[in-house]
Amino acid sequence: MPDIPIISIVGRSGSGKTTLMEKLIPELARRGLRVATVKHDAHGFEADREGKDTWRHRMAGAVCSVISSSKGLAMFRAMDREASLDEIRGMVGDVDLVLTEGYKRESAPKVEVYRKGVGDAPLCAGVPELIALVSDIAVDTGAPRLTFDEMARLADIIEERCRHSGHGAERKG
Amino acid sequence: MPDIPIISIVGRSGSGKTTLMEKLIPELARRGLRVATVKHDAHGFEADREGKDTWRHRMAGAVCSVISSSKGLAMFRAMDREASLDEIRGMVGDVDLVLTEGYKRESAPKVEVYRKGVGDAPLCAGVPELIALVSDIAVDTGAPRLTFDEMARLADIIEERCRHSGHGAERKG
Repeated sequence: MPDIPIISIVGRSGSGKTTLMEKLIPELARRGLRVATVKHDAHGFEADREGKDTWRHRMAGAVCSVISSSKGLAMFRAMDREASLDEIRGMVGDVDLVLTEGYKRESAPKVEVYRKGVGDAPLCAGVPELIALVSDIAVDTGAPRLTFDEMARLADIIEERCRHSGHGAERKG
Repeated sequence: MPDIPIISIVGRSGSGKTTLMEKLIPELARRGLRVATVKHDAHGFEADREGKDTWRHRMAGAVCSVISSSKGLAMFRAMDREASLDEIRGMVGDVDLVLTEGYKRESAPKVEVYRKGVGDAPLCAGVPELIALVSDIAVDTGAPRLTFDEMARLADIIEERCRHSGHGAERKG
């Protein structure tokens, strides 16, 4: 089985990456694609909560702690370094596409979000991995430029990329 | 590679399963065992938090959402049924032992926690999967009985069981 394709949504802080994810994911889901998302937190986070049993297990020395119900599953894992996207791809299970928010330094194909006034120019102008620029102003990067209202067109570009990697094609019909 | 061994800590509600886990895990960790824990939540939980980006991604339709830092990683996954221990074992990665809190109906070897006044008799008396009973009173179940202060002895029994399944032995020295 080919690797699950990874597409990274990149852009400067404040450019609207999470908002774009929120508009793009439903469009992909409507097409039958099972999407996993990955976000990097440079500031260190505490998703697990003090006092919860998963937290108590980890404080006792467990390297990984899972809580499971019929509706969802949460896993907390201690790390001594940042997990690579390859490692994360191995954890996410049965999905058609991994969308990352950030991870601009990894080699995955990229969609950049660029907004007037947030930085002088797009981060990825001329970068070969850039497959689309979503922007509120006209700017040339060598990749197709889309507005924030063109989510169907962005989903087309992403689906085309997934089909190239041989994944998700069977859901296209 | 053989399957990662699973041991289930079972017992009635209020018998002290989480407290036992908190005493047992450090003893296992001291011996160099990498432990993952699993807890079932019958009541439905919301480990992910409203407003967090992982939550926003899932609300948008992502089936799985990961947040990653250099210290830890959290994964939230939507499910339409309870995950089996086999499935969870496939997610926890590089560990020597999976300790579950609960899961008494699955076939993993079991340690029962039994406390005077919490139920008339141990749940697993005579059950072949019972490998130890941790109890504050003398009661015969056919398995070794330990007190709550005998965590080293309990860790011995668990390590012995792990060695049988061919896992974790290289860390024994």
